[in-house]
Amino acid sequence: MMLQNPSSKYRAFPPVNLSARQWPDKAITRPPIWMSTDLRDGNQALIEPMSPEKKLRFFEMLVKIGLKEIEVGFPSASQTDFDFVRKLIDEDRIPEDVTIIVLTQSREELIRRTVESAVGARRAIVHLYNSVAPVFRKVVFGMTREQITEIATSGTKLVKELVKQHPQTDWGFEYTPESFSTTELDFSKHICDAVSDIWQPTPHNKMIVNLPSTVECSTPNVYADQIEWMSRKLARRDALIISVHPHNDRGTAVASAELAIMAGADRVEGCLFGNGERTGNVDLVTLAMNLYTQGVHPGLDFSDIDAVRHVVEECNQLPVHPRHPYAGDLVFTAFSGSHQDAIKKGFAQQQPNTLWEIPYLPIDPADLGRNYDAVIRVNSQSGKGGMAYLLEQEFGLSLPRRLQIEFSRAVQAVADASGREIAAKEIHAIFCSEYFDQTSPYAYSAHKMVEDSSSDEPVQIDITLAHRQASMRLQGGGNGPIDAFVNALGLDIKLMDYHEHAIGSGANAKAACYVELRLANGPTMFGAGIDSNIVTASFKAVLSAVNRQLVRAENDVAVTG
Amino acid sequence: MMLQNPSSKYRAFPPVNLSARQWPDKAITRPPIWMSTDLRDGNQALIEPMSPEKKLRFFEMLVKIGLKEIEVGFPSASQTDFDFVRKLIDEDRIPEDVTIIVLTQSREELIRRTVESAVGARRAIVHLYNSVAPVFRKVVFGMTREQITEIATSGTKLVKELVKQHPQTDWGFEYTPESFSTTELDFSKHICDAVSDIWQPTPHNKMIVNLPSTVECSTPNVYADQIEWMSRKLARRDALIISVHPHNDRGTAVASAELAIMAGADRVEGCLFGNGERTGNVDLVTLAMNLYTQGVHPGLDFSDIDAVRHVVEECNQLPVHPRHPYAGDLVFTAFSGSHQDAIKKGFAQQQPNTLWEIPYLPIDPADLGRNYDAVIRVNSQSGKGGMAYLLEQEFGLSLPRRLQIEFSRAVQAVADASGREIAAKEIHAIFCSEYFDQTSPYAYSAHKMVEDSSSDEPVQIDITLAHRQASMRLQGGGNGPIDAFVNALGLDIKLMDYHEHAIGSGANAKAACYVELRLANGPTMFGAGIDSNIVTASFKAVLSAVNRQLVRAENDVAVTG
Repeated sequence: MMLQNPSSKYRAFPPVNLSARQWPDKAITRPPIWMSTDLRDGNQALIEPMSPEKKLRFFEMLVKIGLKEIEVGFPSASQTDFDFVRKLIDEDRIPEDVTIIVLTQSREELIRRTVESAVGARRAIVHLYNSVAPVFRKVVFGMTREQITEIATSGTKLVKELVKQHPQTDWGFEYTPESFSTTELDFSKHICDAVSDIWQPTPHNKMIVNLPSTVECSTPNVYADQIEWMSRKLARRDALIISVHPHNDRGTAVASAELAIMAGADRVEGCLFGNGERTGNVDLVTLAMNLYTQGVHPGLDFSDIDAVRHVVEECNQLPVHPRHPYAGDLVFTAFSGSHQDAIKKGFAQQQPNTLWEIPYLPIDPADLGRNYDAVIRVNSQSGKGGMAYLLEQEFGLSLPRRLQIEFSRAVQAVADASGREIAAKEIHAIFCSEYFDQTSPYAYSAHKMVEDSSSDEPVQIDITLAHRQASMRLQGGGNGPIDAFVNALGLDIKLMDYHEHAIGSGANAKAACYVELRLANGPTMFGAGIDSNIVTASFKAVLSAVNRQLVRAENDVAVTG
Repeated sequence: MMLQNPSSKYRAFPPVNLSARQWPDKAITRPPIWMSTDLRDGNQALIEPMSPEKKLRFFEMLVKIGLKEIEVGFPSASQTDFDFVRKLIDEDRIPEDVTIIVLTQSREELIRRTVESAVGARRAIVHLYNSVAPVFRKVVFGMTREQITEIATSGTKLVKELVKQHPQTDWGFEYTPESFSTTELDFSKHICDAVSDIWQPTPHNKMIVNLPSTVECSTPNVYADQIEWMSRKLARRDALIISVHPHNDRGTAVASAELAIMAGADRVEGCLFGNGERTGNVDLVTLAMNLYTQGVHPGLDFSDIDAVRHVVEECNQLPVHPRHPYAGDLVFTAFSGSHQDAIKKGFAQQQPNTLWEIPYLPIDPADLGRNYDAVIRVNSQSGKGGMAYLLEQEFGLSLPRRLQIEFSRAVQAVADASGREIAAKEIHAIFCSEYFDQTSPYAYSAHKMVEDSSSDEPVQIDITLAHRQASMRLQGGGNGPIDAFVNALGLDIKLMDYHEHAIGSGANAKAACYVELRLANGPTMFGAGIDSNIVTASFKAVLSAVNRQLVRAENDVAVTG
């Protein structure tokens, strides 16, 4: 099916009537006020919303990065969020220079609950929103402009009244005309002016007007035009902080935020690595590091970006893409020979304390806590993803994740020693020699096993091993074959993990088995075995792990001795 | 460690001296010429470059989508690429309206080899490049502007001379001043003019001038200024096609391309879903669909975007991010109740053949072959990622991927029937009832097994099953326990896949086993078993799969009969 002609269904976004446009001549010379909505907009858009423990972990990381404004939840919509806000306040977990923000729709009971959630905080911003775009007025609410304005102003009045009752907290106020980007500009100005007329902000006590691209539906220059229009026309401009909240439906949220700052925005709301509804909110990491590479300190600290990424991936259960700016696995990697050559020459000539000038690298990876080692790969297969992929595609071996990491060290060692390309076949050979062929001091020879599931110790085993040129027989019993085998060995073994899978199918199928075990309270280590019999494969895997630990221990003794 | 002050190491990108800037008043009313460099720039940046089979599959998909210009490789740098180009030509695989492009550095032997690779094509564009930015001139080559210009012009002369010897091919020419975005504009103009002076393009036989942001190092408005400057000043403008090739180091490649088109670019080079060096090239899918939602047909067909994504992910071995515009798993998903409510009202009021006006959905998912069903999730746990995550986190079950997909249907069926939230516990209960508890008609009771690895048929088994209130005993032998068990059953079973892993560790560990098998040439189906004995777990898994197939077959008979 060919895409239909879209002209009957979609229309071009109308241009903004803006005379003597200023923003294209501007540059960004200082950072905006950053506001993280990871714990609100981001969290709402997760498959699995964060537990209170994860929220706290994320909050503490945001504080450490340097965020001073953190939207901590939607307390009237979620008991978890309400409790989390109370926990932060009651346990005094909010640093003095950090302000929390709580979001609420403009409805009386929700506003009351929201203010209640934040009472007692040193400083808190109540963030009120209602939808103002034509499609919402018509389709969702069936209301006139006046009625929509009344929702915003009556809510603002209530917030003002309620917060007066709790003077121990320094209250701020933020108003969002939701779906601003698809709303008539004159109406957006009208409703924001009506709200600020009630709140009565001053240059010393500003109010935040947040203008979201709730759904991104134009090129970013149009959004910038909208922001410049608003920035010029809003009443009480000097008493307002203009904020933007760009979504990424057209893949241009970062650009929208940057051009909007040029157009007059003072503040940006977003999430780390661009989490949030649908395509996400604007990515604060990219925005901040984009400033950094222009010589402007963003006031946020991503000098250990891998640690930040780790927490975010754990809390969101969403990956950061390998090509994500600054943080992706592949962004400081050059595969092509000409790139590698140019980068090498650049490093050779780069002087300390001079301007950064390395071809193909817009930023020094070290500034993000990342490594030069990653810049030039030893070969096209290195890196655990590549190795694991090759072993699976070419040899049918599907390594458990921790084994991938363990094995990558062995490959890296060979690569470093040889200094040349390592082919797929060679990676397989390294795996065999490191795991499958670890048959010394103990090698599997044969076994006999009797299973009777009705017996107390249902499995009885008789194994034959080769040990230093001699043959040895051992007997043991257990709940299952591995248990019986381990008992027969008579060693202090704790089995930590076990995976087994078929290679191929049908009569010629083999099984590959991977076990992770701890021998005599040593470090955990993997072993692997392969056989047409799943039981035999598991025995070989156990022996492989045991042998690897014994060899390692002997070497350690040899080194220390 | 706090990020250091960047002002000593990085500097702001210099503004472009452009008077009476035009592009911010423009809108995009027709699509650019699209050029896919997936098989060249994209392929070069893969951990595992594509095999010839994958390249061909990707090429054929690009043709199907509607690409008319496809860069098929870097034939002088890679034998695989050379052979692939020859294969396309010799096997007559290039449709009449498709032009292939072959990239070469400006060096004699490379140019000769490149032209040779494309001889005999109906139409081919030779794409010549050399690096022109100051950092390359100084650090990498140690050459003057004149020497750099000489590289470009002598290469152009050679291409012109060589292609004349092969008049059976309609030859086009593209010149790229690499690292244009960080090059002085006057020098970029100088070198492009020098090249076109040799090639002598005409309005009927245009030459492509490709102006890449090889590394993205400014806000996208600055790139647009650069393109407008060039478009105004280049000699023989009416005989040129101005092309852009934006990279995504600052996360603004899509915006850069869009503003550049407004600024005069006629053509865009990019990759599907933004593959390419480091942070990738501009994403052609997003660009095309952004046009589509403005009522402009892009001339590319993404009406089955999942199929396209599938091929790209398989060939690139890189994922499309869940929040990727238009194609990500989560972009047509609303989690928040207020969003869901507004979308529902929008759908209810949307009339056929009218403008698309659904809150929070910038495009009709059906236009991309995606489904309304995905818009509102039944619950926060649905979707195979969520379920698999829960089963692993809460119950230690690590389902193979194909089983995840099979199982998701069972969960969806329950969700659809109940129309309410499905909790983690319930998902586990569904899994148990669908797999572990499938004990009818055959249930495992007990087994005895004798293994003697020195024997021809090393495993002999005696199994007791419960079958319709009766007990039955079966005997069999085989290479391994599963083989022997299947033989004892005496059914026509082909084992397709097998996975087994531990749940927990130590003495209390259990094993979960998953098998995929085909019974009597029916469809393949999974079964799962759990037991403290790995062998027993595998027997239970086989019975689970057999039972599921038998029940399914009976139901089918009941329905058709």
